[in-house]
Amino acid sequence: MEFTVSTTKKQELVDITHQVEEAVAKSGAKEGLCNVYVAHATAAIAINENADPNITLDIIDALDKTVKESGWRHDCIDNNAAAHIKAAIVGPSETIPVKDGKLRLGRWQGIFLCDFDGPRKRTVAVTVIKTK
Amino acid sequence: MEFTVSTTKKQELVDITHQVEEAVAKSGAKEGLCNVYVAHATAAIAINENADPNITLDIIDALDKTVKESGWRHDCIDNNAAAHIKAAIVGPSETIPVKDGKLRLGRWQGIFLCDFDGPRKRTVAVTVIKTK
Amino acid sequence: MEFTVSTTKKQELVDITHQVEEAVAKSGAKEGLCNVYVAHATAAIAINENADPNITLDIIDALDKTVKESGWRHDCIDNNAAAHIKAAIVGPSETIPVKDGKLRLGRWQGIFLCDFDGPRKRTVAVTVIKTK
Repeated sequence: MEFTVSTTKKQELVDITHQVEEAVAKSGAKEGLCNVYVAHATAAIAINENADPNITLDIIDALDKTVKESGWRHDCIDNNAAAHIKAAIVGPSETIPVKDGKLRLGRWQGIFLCDFDGPRKRTVAVTVIKTK
Repeated sequence: MEFTVSTTKKQELVDITHQVEEAVAKSGAKEGLCNVYVAHATAAIAINENADPNITLDIIDALDKTVKESGWRHDCIDNNAAAHIKAAIVGPSETIPVKDGKLRLGRWQGIFLCDFDGPRKRTVAVTVIKTK
Repeated sequence: MEFTVSTTKKQELVDITHQVEEAVAKSGAKEGLCNVYVAHATAAIAINENADPNITLDIIDALDKTVKESGWRHDCIDNNAAAHIKAAIVGPSETIPVKDGKLRLGRWQGIFLCDFDGPRKRTVAVTVIKTK
């Protein structure tokens, strides 16, 4: 199952927990694993708190402080090396247990699509492995 | 299968390799995948050397140097933004192959629960997908 | 299925997409998940663009700027703490969906073995979970 997310900013973490929960429900799995994968080299999947939206801004700020915006070799090609580096560090996927037909997220965990080179239309693939 | 770990420090990497190996043994799987997932937004799962305990301290120091302790937006809420950011970077899970009924870890690899906002009681879920 | 990669530099990202694709083809899976795992504590698996080889150099540079080369506790043992820390941050595995018998990579995504303490011979395990 795949869905798309249209981001609206240069850098943005978009909560996709609901779409992933829906894919798990449709799969009919009671137990197993759910893999969430973004098929782009300047985006990533992260899991973190979705109650306070400021956390997503803090995560973007922290990555900006770690990876400078310009001065990379790849910037000669299409000026988005920082986005590639952030995507490599955060990673394109997360794999979450399924329990009692639902994602086994903690109370404060949500799933985020991280766009580091938006605004763009991003494709997310959800794969459920059913053990029950 | 789930188990809990009670951390004793503000920041700590706790070796949970033994508990995960036990879960794999109980599953009866000979081949497949083992997902280790921590259901908290200020904790993470990492894999690294467990022979020299100083490595866990070095990893904490490196993350401290990368993510400053205070001055984040979310600190106004509950003063643990740095822990959330570290958890997002390291990630809440690892997925490890199972081979001949055991985790296919390298000689120097152990599995660690990383607590960035302890001391707390943390829940870890182990999910084994059996292909043989 | 396992294969080895002989790296030639101290730090290097080696494109292993082809070897992983081959393992997926051999598995006969049409749909499912493919886990790529490196069984070493100073190496990692990353996914990023493989069209411009400069990106791999930019990623190494960014990690070098984030994790200083020396001055860590573990350096007293075998002088490679920075490599361990980078491996812990990037992580030893990636899990990628399989669709229509192929890896569901984005157009600009390739799979890389990251060696942070080479040159060495590294073992990579590929595990395919077949749902169809």
